[in-house]
Amino acid sequence: MIKRLCIIGVGLIGGSLARDLKREKLVGEVVGSSRNASNLKRAVELGVVDRYDTDIAAAVIGADMVVVAVPLGAMAEVFGALESNLDSGAVVTDVGSAKGSVLKAAAEAFGAVPDFLVPAHPIAGTEHSGVDASMEGLFRDRMVIITPAAQTRADALEKVKTMWQATGAKITEMSPLHHDEVLAATSHLPHMLAYTLVDVLGRMEERVEIFRYAAGGFRDFTRIASSDPQMWHDICLANRDALVHALEHFSDDLGEAIDAIRRGDSAAIKSLFTRAKALRDRYTKNG
Amino acid sequence: MIKRLCIIGVGLIGGSLARDLKREKLVGEVVGSSRNASNLKRAVELGVVDRYDTDIAAAVIGADMVVVAVPLGAMAEVFGALESNLDSGAVVTDVGSAKGSVLKAAAEAFGAVPDFLVPAHPIAGTEHSGVDASMEGLFRDRMVIITPAAQTRADALEKVKTMWQATGAKITEMSPLHHDEVLAATSHLPHMLAYTLVDVLGRMEERVEIFRYAAGGFRDFTRIASSDPQMWHDICLANRDALVHALEHFSDDLGEAIDAIRRGDSAAIKSLFTRAKALRDRYTKNG
Repeated sequence: MIKRLCIIGVGLIGGSLARDLKREKLVGEVVGSSRNASNLKRAVELGVVDRYDTDIAAAVIGADMVVVAVPLGAMAEVFGALESNLDSGAVVTDVGSAKGSVLKAAAEAFGAVPDFLVPAHPIAGTEHSGVDASMEGLFRDRMVIITPAAQTRADALEKVKTMWQATGAKITEMSPLHHDEVLAATSHLPHMLAYTLVDVLGRMEERVEIFRYAAGGFRDFTRIASSDPQMWHDICLANRDALVHALEHFSDDLGEAIDAIRRGDSAAIKSLFTRAKALRDRYTKNG
Repeated sequence: MIKRLCIIGVGLIGGSLARDLKREKLVGEVVGSSRNASNLKRAVELGVVDRYDTDIAAAVIGADMVVVAVPLGAMAEVFGALESNLDSGAVVTDVGSAKGSVLKAAAEAFGAVPDFLVPAHPIAGTEHSGVDASMEGLFRDRMVIITPAAQTRADALEKVKTMWQATGAKITEMSPLHHDEVLAATSHLPHMLAYTLVDVLGRMEERVEIFRYAAGGFRDFTRIASSDPQMWHDICLANRDALVHALEHFSDDLGEAIDAIRRGDSAAIKSLFTRAKALRDRYTKNG
């Protein structure tokens, strides 16, 4: 049971979490905070939060759980703002798509990674954003990866786990570093490829025609290039090392594929396609 | 009206075309041909073709329309087999995903590109293949690109257009070379990226975990890597020049993106994402 929950950044993720916790009657009062007063007013209207304060330092007073649901690029500033007024015994968690950078931001704001910080990443989202897009059940059967730091206290970890379990999400734990590697490969890399593909095609002369004739596979592929540019900008910088590593790995492999096609190496091409199809079929059946 | 239609390769595409033409009563007799007698027997059972002959040279006798619906890698052999027995006045068309290579195969088999050859490409398909996957209406509202060669006779072109119009497809015309460039960019390149991505991830140590944590975007992205490896192998070789050009273009752009992320160039990263999202949103709205 959370007595007072403070959500900093009441958008799709923060708002949906508050809705679930209210529905489950697992929270006493919900306080919203961010710079955007009109979004916070809307959150009160929708019943997502009970009250709000645009002053983050004031909003966290008396909260036993603080969820930081702001873009990765704003984490350091938010940690800095809430640091002085946090209740002893309060647990702080976040929902960022990269975890190493969140720990770094926390270490800077608090002097060291605090034992009450439990970094987490709910893998959920839609193409829409803002509190109007928030909904009950967004996290049901979705994955929430919790990435405790070496310093994280067991009771704080337990409290964040319990909170996310209430949403119906599947909870899993891994190290922050491993999380960043896995997400770089499975999410950040594909997004980079989709964005780059759309950009390449857009700059070709025949672009109107190219988009006109683009077939189904292309549309599947590029749907994710409609996501929020600011969010992906933040992710690229926040998860830079793991993402560059994954991109370089991909780039090397693509170079080999290009060489194989250029020299008409039938065996190498068939081997690539057969291997990839087998893997894709196997793991999607198991997933 | 087609008196006798010979379909060489009675699979998803060839079979679905035959079904539509029969439904519209635009064809007298349909003769199927290929190496695969059991598939042809099944096509007769399903009523997709009226009779079959595994000898291609025998199957085309008396046909006024011949549709070659075999993989790109088999085109040359099929043209060679049907060449001697073709009726004067017969029109030949194909359904290959690359057109330059089809013209080349025809020129080799016939001595020169024949004036009765009308290369075409219906952009339709499912993850399934074979005559059992064929269906009425597969081409409704899909694009069929007809790519006449300089030699193609106007009356032959007209006959193939009329045939495809009967399926409810949207017909468009362009040069074979332009077709190959457009398809390399919008279809063959995305498929190569999806195959390469799955291959890269599959070879990473953490592969089980990676596929376990793969989120929605990843699944969209890699769905097309479940297509038939042999077909994509053939496309890569058949459309080699245009595909290598598109891949190199992509590879250069990706290299620039990697550099921008590596040096933390916020402006360059944001510019890429914003440009791509705007293009994607604009053209998908118009499409």
